[in-house]
Amino acid sequence: MLPEEDNSHPIIHRATDYVPPRNWRHWLIGRPLPTADAPHQTIGKFTGLAVFASDALSSTAYATQEILFILAAAGTMAFSYVFPISIAIVVLLAIVALSYEQTIHAYPDGGGSYIVSRDNLGKSPALIAGASLLTDYILTVSVSVSAGVAQIVSAYPELLEYRVPISVGFVFFVMLINLRGVKESGAAFAFPTYFFILLMYLTVGVGLFRYFTGSLGFVDNPPEMDITHTLAGITPFLILHAFSSGTAALTGIEAISNGITAFKEPRSRNAGITLVWMAFILGSLFLGISYLTGHIGAVPSETETVISQMARTIHDGRGVLYHMVIWATTVILILAANTAYADFPRLSAIVAKDGYLPRQMSFRGSRLVFSYGIVTLALIASLLIVVLQASVNRLIPLYAIGVFLSFTLSQAGMARRWRKIGRLQPGQEIAERGSTLRYNRNWQLKMVINGFGAVCTAVVVAVFSVTKFSDGAWMVLILLPLLILMFSLIHRHYSTLAKRLSLEVFAGAAPRATRHRVILPLSGVHQGSLEALRYARRLSDDITAVHVSIDPDEAVKLRQKWENWGEGVRLVILDSPYRLFIEPLLKYVEEILTHRQPDETITIVVPQFIPSKAWHNLLHTNTATLLRNELLSRPGIIITDVPYQVP
Amino acid sequence: MLPEEDNSHPIIHRATDYVPPRNWRHWLIGRPLPTADAPHQTIGKFTGLAVFASDALSSTAYATQEILFILAAAGTMAFSYVFPISIAIVVLLAIVALSYEQTIHAYPDGGGSYIVSRDNLGKSPALIAGASLLTDYILTVSVSVSAGVAQIVSAYPELLEYRVPISVGFVFFVMLINLRGVKESGAAFAFPTYFFILLMYLTVGVGLFRYFTGSLGFVDNPPEMDITHTLAGITPFLILHAFSSGTAALTGIEAISNGITAFKEPRSRNAGITLVWMAFILGSLFLGISYLTGHIGAVPSETETVISQMARTIHDGRGVLYHMVIWATTVILILAANTAYADFPRLSAIVAKDGYLPRQMSFRGSRLVFSYGIVTLALIASLLIVVLQASVNRLIPLYAIGVFLSFTLSQAGMARRWRKIGRLQPGQEIAERGSTLRYNRNWQLKMVINGFGAVCTAVVVAVFSVTKFSDGAWMVLILLPLLILMFSLIHRHYSTLAKRLSLEVFAGAAPRATRHRVILPLSGVHQGSLEALRYARRLSDDITAVHVSIDPDEAVKLRQKWENWGEGVRLVILDSPYRLFIEPLLKYVEEILTHRQPDETITIVVPQFIPSKAWHNLLHTNTATLLRNELLSRPGIIITDVPYQVP
Repeated sequence: MLPEEDNSHPIIHRATDYVPPRNWRHWLIGRPLPTADAPHQTIGKFTGLAVFASDALSSTAYATQEILFILAAAGTMAFSYVFPISIAIVVLLAIVALSYEQTIHAYPDGGGSYIVSRDNLGKSPALIAGASLLTDYILTVSVSVSAGVAQIVSAYPELLEYRVPISVGFVFFVMLINLRGVKESGAAFAFPTYFFILLMYLTVGVGLFRYFTGSLGFVDNPPEMDITHTLAGITPFLILHAFSSGTAALTGIEAISNGITAFKEPRSRNAGITLVWMAFILGSLFLGISYLTGHIGAVPSETETVISQMARTIHDGRGVLYHMVIWATTVILILAANTAYADFPRLSAIVAKDGYLPRQMSFRGSRLVFSYGIVTLALIASLLIVVLQASVNRLIPLYAIGVFLSFTLSQAGMARRWRKIGRLQPGQEIAERGSTLRYNRNWQLKMVINGFGAVCTAVVVAVFSVTKFSDGAWMVLILLPLLILMFSLIHRHYSTLAKRLSLEVFAGAAPRATRHRVILPLSGVHQGSLEALRYARRLSDDITAVHVSIDPDEAVKLRQKWENWGEGVRLVILDSPYRLFIEPLLKYVEEILTHRQPDETITIVVPQFIPSKAWHNLLHTNTATLLRNELLSRPGIIITDVPYQVP
Repeated sequence: MLPEEDNSHPIIHRATDYVPPRNWRHWLIGRPLPTADAPHQTIGKFTGLAVFASDALSSTAYATQEILFILAAAGTMAFSYVFPISIAIVVLLAIVALSYEQTIHAYPDGGGSYIVSRDNLGKSPALIAGASLLTDYILTVSVSVSAGVAQIVSAYPELLEYRVPISVGFVFFVMLINLRGVKESGAAFAFPTYFFILLMYLTVGVGLFRYFTGSLGFVDNPPEMDITHTLAGITPFLILHAFSSGTAALTGIEAISNGITAFKEPRSRNAGITLVWMAFILGSLFLGISYLTGHIGAVPSETETVISQMARTIHDGRGVLYHMVIWATTVILILAANTAYADFPRLSAIVAKDGYLPRQMSFRGSRLVFSYGIVTLALIASLLIVVLQASVNRLIPLYAIGVFLSFTLSQAGMARRWRKIGRLQPGQEIAERGSTLRYNRNWQLKMVINGFGAVCTAVVVAVFSVTKFSDGAWMVLILLPLLILMFSLIHRHYSTLAKRLSLEVFAGAAPRATRHRVILPLSGVHQGSLEALRYARRLSDDITAVHVSIDPDEAVKLRQKWENWGEGVRLVILDSPYRLFIEPLLKYVEEILTHRQPDETITIVVPQFIPSKAWHNLLHTNTATLLRNELLSRPGIIITDVPYQVP
């Protein structure tokens, strides 16, 4: 007797001792982890910084250069604006980081722009934030991997023609590591990240020391400067444009807020501290690089990066240290993709839980990560790389608008939240969805800070949209509404479904059906069909066997056999003059449906031949499956397969 | 009340008034024809000659040239052997044709080599004959279309790079016409066939007239002769080799014997007369061409065909008549494919009926032709054209061995048949499968004729195999055994199946099962699953609902809902620590299967969500289908789908 046959309590809850057997997937991504392991699959601050900071830190590799490129339009005198602009950007960085730090504590289950917008601004802003972030994560993977591979290719030009497969290879390599779980990918990528941080601090530190001790010279043999614009004056617009370009340094700053759940408990605290550290490292390196750049006379160029110019000036030529800096930069560019792999699946899982993406994206895979999201990210990013041929120049304009849009929404959401908090009595607390509103007497200051941040980032979005529109930013502005439309369609499907299936308005089971009709399609009379007949007789006494006759001789034979074996059950032979099988049967069923009484149940019992070898399927017209597909969509018909296996 | 609910007689036979609605297929291949139209879908002698003779007649376009190519090895003096060799070939043609004429009357339901071998020689020779003929029909399509397109391409060299798509296009064009039905393809292709016959007779007739009146000169400006062999003597082997090559004239002669059922009644008589006419036209044209060739000094060449040399000599240069001859030859080469389209599907239907090919090949399509066979032929022939790049030279060596193998078997079979007839008493008749053995006092003579034919064609097969082995004939010699192996595997499957399902040794229905267990997998409690529960309750009182729990919160909610709505039915909740759904459920079912009592029936009632739009499927993990696929192969489980449609 099975345990559940003891009927003392009708509900039995038992643990399954099912353990997945070894298979090739385990070799690739590791053995499955039970759900109970989830708390152990979180990461501390050290690994967390490596996982979530690589995207943000990689932007130090190009942010200063982006500012220089714009200022170059007004000639080299304009380069003196680099450091002041960098200070302004670091202030903005501080505001945004501060805002996210607050958010992390307010939303311990994940406090990205999507959630903050959803809870404070409403559905549409939330969807905009979600769509822009998801787009941006995809672009992060494509852009950063393409940029890293571009660095490799400039070192080994013979690889040029293979850059697309190499890039796609990296995308899938990072995917595989991420499918192994958040802990393992953190461990795998921690070393190169810290190596980069260390080397950059070393370089900037030595540079500053040599500058203040007066031993730092100018860039030797500077590359030719590319000036695409005609010489212009130093206008406020130019400064604003340079500022916007430099805000590329901020991309990736939001990563931690989307990934709070990856941290060990106390997760808000751990995530918050990691964020502060990340912002500090990012800000200081960026400022240091910008400062030094201005004093060594580095110029923006397509042939040599500013980092390269700086490294060879500080380290006195192309020695070991110089090459280490270049390689570390290459690796951090590729690793920026890893941050996207950490965040995209988490964000899409949150969005999917709200019913705006396929629900499968919220399922945790065998290694407790959101495998669907990871694979989806890899596929779309690879597609983008293939379509745009791994060209960084064609990918870059699509990038960064999304991030700043989400910054704006997130800060606006936080400002609104402070407004709500301002309405509370001192000491009062209100629980609101995933967060708690708690009275704070500095709410006005905080609201102003967040509001100011929102305005600044909104300006950046506007400047970006205008200056990069024709370069490809228009694609993003078309893509976002389409994504939001997709979200809405998916959501409508799920909510309609839930409403239709809901038991709230359900009147309870209908009265027992008065009649149960069984239809038994027959292609021949043999052991398989007699088994189906036997089962049909258990269901009801009202059985009609139906044979669609294509060959009259067959029909005669079948009829004789049925007289012997049919147990007196009614047999209808339908002549099919056009040698069709499914259609006449469907028509017959249709006829019965129109004549049926209310609450009559109709079951089609289909004898289904199951071959023992797959190729045997080619030798049979699988009418059972065809019939099933046709009938499933008709309401009120139940389909029973009585399989007969033949060895 | 439906008519079948009158239970006075349990077997009701009724015609379906289902008429297929118009759709795009009808535009392409015509409206479906009812089976009753079959007698009207036969063709008379006039159309029959066009359909079945094009393959044979097209060989007059190259047979003489093939002889010349071989004889050229011994220098131009050897060309005087062309006519004697041609006479020998025509004698062989007469023997083979005679044999087939006899066969047609003996086997009115189709008397190709396959049937004659099967009924007189046994299973293995029949399969060899079937495999060689089917291979040869495929090659006929590839070779003749490629050869026709090669002619077109030599007229319009700018089409050279498109020859593969053009050839494939022709293959599918002829396929489409054939899918329209035998009558329509006959009508479509009758004109070009008769046009070719007329033009050839005109050319040969004018040629002979001018020769005998002395006004026929020699080939003007003959093309350069290609002699690939070193000059050799006129050995018996050379003559034999030339004879074998010339027997290419006989390919296609068997076509009518495979296609008897396409003829109007009296079909044996009609088919026989058509065969005699075809053999007469073929023989006389071939002899005429060979005769004239020798007297105008035509030479074999890769740059100009013998037909072209003859036509411009007879018609005094490249005038209108000359061009008409060339075009008619091109068209007849392509139309030779049409004969294969008429025969391949018929032969494969016969082989399929015997259980050596997928049974679907014996089903008549909407236009009463064997559509599966037609489409299969087009697909394989196209594949061959694509693989061998429409190169006639690479296709030709594969060709003709199959035909002669089947001639040999067919003649040997007929000889054996005469031997059997010789054992009968005068006037005696014995029915044997599809034919009747009838005493004939000339049986010895007829046996000798067929036996001699068999020996001659066997010699041709041997010479072919040897001389063309390294050119690609080895492929055929590998392919044939593989095909026969495939036939045998298919046959074994069908016969094992028939034996297993047979009612001969069936002990009758087992005693009524003592217990009916129902298992109801649940993913949630909603209207859909309650409908399934309601149905399950009609089946049995022994129901176990099973929920595989991935999320403990869900399980708690489900449990509460079940307490309200579950009607007291037992619910088993299986915790799935590895977040798998199917596997724990399968393990549970497995457990029940091992504990089950003899004759216990187990039904799995699966609530299945049916989305109204196909893309909605992406938003659901279709566990019902996955479960079904896994369970169908396990004996003793019945699967019932209770679909719930959500608009």
